[in-house]
Amino acid sequence: MSESVSQLPLSALRQRIRDNAYTGSTSGLAQGYLQANLVILPAEWATDFLLFCQRNPVACPLIGMTEPGQKHLAEIGLDIDISRDVPEYNVFYDGEFEHATPDLVELWRDDLVTFVLGCSFSFEEAMLQTGLRVRNIDQQCNVSMYDTNIACQPAGRFHGNMVVSMRPFTPADAIRAIQVTTRFPKAHGAPVHFGEPSAIGIEDIDSPNYGDAVEIKPQEVPVFWACGVTPQNVMRNSKPPFCITHAPGKMLITDRLNNEFAFL
Amino acid sequence: MSESVSQLPLSALRQRIRDNAYTGSTSGLAQGYLQANLVILPAEWATDFLLFCQRNPVACPLIGMTEPGQKHLAEIGLDIDISRDVPEYNVFYDGEFEHATPDLVELWRDDLVTFVLGCSFSFEEAMLQTGLRVRNIDQQCNVSMYDTNIACQPAGRFHGNMVVSMRPFTPADAIRAIQVTTRFPKAHGAPVHFGEPSAIGIEDIDSPNYGDAVEIKPQEVPVFWACGVTPQNVMRNSKPPFCITHAPGKMLITDRLNNEFAFL
Repeated sequence: MSESVSQLPLSALRQRIRDNAYTGSTSGLAQGYLQANLVILPAEWATDFLLFCQRNPVACPLIGMTEPGQKHLAEIGLDIDISRDVPEYNVFYDGEFEHATPDLVELWRDDLVTFVLGCSFSFEEAMLQTGLRVRNIDQQCNVSMYDTNIACQPAGRFHGNMVVSMRPFTPADAIRAIQVTTRFPKAHGAPVHFGEPSAIGIEDIDSPNYGDAVEIKPQEVPVFWACGVTPQNVMRNSKPPFCITHAPGKMLITDRLNNEFAFL
Repeated sequence: MSESVSQLPLSALRQRIRDNAYTGSTSGLAQGYLQANLVILPAEWATDFLLFCQRNPVACPLIGMTEPGQKHLAEIGLDIDISRDVPEYNVFYDGEFEHATPDLVELWRDDLVTFVLGCSFSFEEAMLQTGLRVRNIDQQCNVSMYDTNIACQPAGRFHGNMVVSMRPFTPADAIRAIQVTTRFPKAHGAPVHFGEPSAIGIEDIDSPNYGDAVEIKPQEVPVFWACGVTPQNVMRNSKPPFCITHAPGKMLITDRLNNEFAFL
């Protein structure tokens, strides 16, 4: 990303994104502010997904939910336009990815309900602040994400397995990372697994299903957190006729501070 | 241990120990009350050891320290007699273990200073309360303890490596155990390592240096906490002319509640 974008204050960055002048990753941007995963569904499917979030709070930590057709949500910021303030959206028909788009101006419908879900970018910031190094940030790439065999609790028409993100650490640093992320239950909280990838159905740690592969050094173990890409996996199973999400790594930046959602 | 001892209230159990009628392990006794490691040194060595505790708070979490010759310590209980209320004491001359004794009535000296250090029995109780199983409790044996290559911070004449205790868990349970033990900084707090034993200088996980070997099941990893036996290892290096400790697993049971020392 350009130096200028990483230095922009939140209001200017949001305007740049709203104008479709920035469509890249939001990792490391607007430091301190909560970034969020989005899931947008027709109202007819919203109750099932709300229940899915309630039953799977680690993979789907719900920050807020709109009324049908509403593009604003006071909980995350008075100025936010959900249909324009994400750098890039993914559009799914019948559960299959169709195309990406920099805004939803043409696609918006009065029956769309938006779910705002917490994101691990919040705890990555807390990791850095406690002196931990985060490999995907050091390698300037997207975090590694994997499909697993960990079944989510089904809810209505929604069912599927958890997607996890992975960051490698030495055991001592992994213990610190577990402590730090425990403080952020709305950002997926503590890890769900560490060590042997096959124990959660990951066959090849060097071939993530989403994002980029990162180096795992000798003495390091992979540590796995529930990931906000889980809903996209669930959509593939459950095939709602229409669904929109953020594009992975390109989040909605809210007006709320990460630390407002910290436990202590 | 006899059924009757495990059911005794604290006051009756303490009397039994004081009368040398019970000299066994205190694991699982007087549930809820803080149990402590003891280190008793001549006053001439006390300042160095106080500094050692200050520099190594994970291995040597200091609960209280007496004046020279004092057998009572209000912080841990008004009624406690340090020279009689431990089931069994280990006596060291010039750093070498000499003999065990059920009381210090004959050995007591007016220059002895007692250090009361937190003990992992406190967090084992918290583990059980959160639904975790503790292997050494299930196998009704002493916890496995190992010498490591983790150097303590030296202080004055005291130096040496950390001793650790080990409990095996699945990764998901280990994550929970890290969270639970983080709440008890005065009981050694979070682990210092998990996984590969050789990374901290342990050559054979099946041959603990102290305590008993426990089964590590497939899918489980060994998790290592700093251990209150560390001072006994340090004494071997530093060779104070006279030193007394509790015998491993046979602790001083205090009047304080474990939960008084919990962080949240």
